Amino acid sequence: MKIICITLFLTLAAMTNAQEKPTIQSTIIGLEKAALERWIHGDPTAFLELSAPDVVYFDPFLERRLNGIDELTKLYMPLKGQVNAEQFELIDPVVQATDKMAVLTFNFRSQVGEKLQKWNCTEVYRLEADGKWKIVQTHWSLTKPELK
Amino acid sequence: MKIICITLFLTLAAMTNAQEKPTIQSTIIGLEKAALERWIHGDPTAFLELSAPDVVYFDPFLERRLNGIDELTKLYMPLKGQVNAEQFELIDPVVQATDKMAVLTFNFRSQVGEKLQKWNCTEVYRLEADGKWKIVQTHWSLTKPELK
Repeated sequence: MKIICITLFLTLAAMTNAQEKPTIQSTIIGLEKAALERWIHGDPTAFLELSAPDVVYFDPFLERRLNGIDELTKLYMPLKGQVNAEQFELIDPVVQATDKMAVLTFNFRSQVGEKLQKWNCTEVYRLEADGKWKIVQTHWSLTKPELK
Repeated sequence: MKIICITLFLTLAAMTNAQEKPTIQSTIIGLEKAALERWIHGDPTAFLELSAPDVVYFDPFLERRLNGIDELTKLYMPLKGQVNAEQFELIDPVVQATDKMAVLTFNFRSQVGEKLQKWNCTEVYRLEADGKWKIVQTHWSLTKPELK
């Protein structure tokens, strides 16, 4: 009986601990999903707030990598109110983490009217001095684009 | 004279130190360039040797992210001897590093005959227990692809 009680106690303690302490993985995926939820409803500021001053950025419509939050802000702010997707899906998100940096990768699908958009995405997050995870690198690309 | 000698000594010591201790930045860029040099001459094994077991990988010709070195090996080995570019250029490589993880981004140009190929690339390196940096994430995408 004593052994059962100890086992039960340890199991409950582990469960409580798991609930109280989110992992790096769940923290990063939570941050990304929250920003995407705002993004697909026309609000680019979530990603700007989540990005570090030295963030670098690729997407398929740019001739070169963007360098720094000012360049990203110039790209994103004119898009305010322009994006409107019904839903999105992160397919098989994976987080590879060390204590201060984590890379999140996923395939992404979003439905805009009849159109299904398919993307590859890599986000690199860094744990900043204030204890917050910020994006230092974003890379969006099209999944199997139909080329001319 | 004594001050000049001390200054000279400190300057030389600093120079020697700089030569002896490569930075994370120069180490990462050096590893990437060496692997690319072998890649453009038809040898994909350099990147496989440089990648960690849990590497994840995107390129524009895949329907989904590849997961792990086995999937990457299956993609890369049939390409042995198939790639043959005259030269390549890493444009403005940037390394954002913590002590155990570093993200390298660059625009890439390679010349294959008359054709100029333009790419965006993100590599994430992790410092492994044996003191070697290994790639844990690769993302290649086309720069401004001409879409149908």
